[in-house]
Amino acid sequence: MKMIMAIVQPKDAGKLRDAFIDNNIGATKLSSTGGFLREGNTTYMVVVEDDRVDEVLEIIKHNAKSREQYMTPAAQIDNGSSAIPINVQIGGATVFILPVEKFLQF
Amino acid sequence: MKMIMAIVQPKDAGKLRDAFIDNNIGATKLSSTGGFLREGNTTYMVVVEDDRVDEVLEIIKHNAKSREQYMTPAAQIDNGSSAIPINVQIGGATVFILPVEKFLQF
Amino acid sequence: MKMIMAIVQPKDAGKLRDAFIDNNIGATKLSSTGGFLREGNTTYMVVVEDDRVDEVLEIIKHNAKSREQYMTPAAQIDNGSSAIPINVQIGGATVFILPVEKFLQF
Repeated sequence: MKMIMAIVQPKDAGKLRDAFIDNNIGATKLSSTGGFLREGNTTYMVVVEDDRVDEVLEIIKHNAKSREQYMTPAAQIDNGSSAIPINVQIGGATVFILPVEKFLQF
Repeated sequence: MKMIMAIVQPKDAGKLRDAFIDNNIGATKLSSTGGFLREGNTTYMVVVEDDRVDEVLEIIKHNAKSREQYMTPAAQIDNGSSAIPINVQIGGATVFILPVEKFLQF
Repeated sequence: MKMIMAIVQPKDAGKLRDAFIDNNIGATKLSSTGGFLREGNTTYMVVVEDDRVDEVLEIIKHNAKSREQYMTPAAQIDNGSSAIPINVQIGGATVFILPVEKFLQF
């Protein structure tokens, strides 16, 4: 079995949780904050059999991967100038896979 | 050494913490929520020597295992009908054991 | 790669976080409380290449190791007697190193 720790942005956390539920994957959410960006993030801890690891990785990738999005800067709207949408990068997931020696349920 | 991660219900968390203290087992409690049930749960992280793993598992089992309990449904009390206690399942612990390569204290 | 889990006192958490940032080490802070002392503590989760483990350990040691500090007991100040500083132990870090099989970024 493997433990998959996925650190994602709050923006993607709800969507990812729903995807875990839809796919019958038990995930525990740990409250966490990023040391780097000093902003909130979400850490999901998932433990699955080895043959489901790729499936979990696909779900994380599909729901939280880094992508670009056109946004209209608020400053431009405020000062009444024509709002030109700019391309910003959002999302992204950092994933660690750890070996699990034993899984038990009481 | 092994890291033992035990995810238990809030109902059992206090009792389990006390049992860890009574048995001189250092446990760190991580704030967590379940992805599945969307309800709060508690994750304990315990690191012990290999020869104490069984002892820790027994403590978790003893204090947080799934069990049945007779409950009187609130609805029956509310409508004044005779309250027939029903059997509900409470508790339960999910436990992962991970290998620890090194333990240090500064 | 290795996962380094460092449990430190709140007193040292901010200083350690800054040191991680200064050294370009991505650290995720997990909300945690100690089972032993029943007081808050902070768990940092850091994942680095094997050849950076010693560097991370040095940073933790430097910023959070157990040390003595002279403190003036509040009671002595309150009752107006001459305040004699006493030596108290503060800080300290508990560190676990776990093997990481895979690290991915999406």
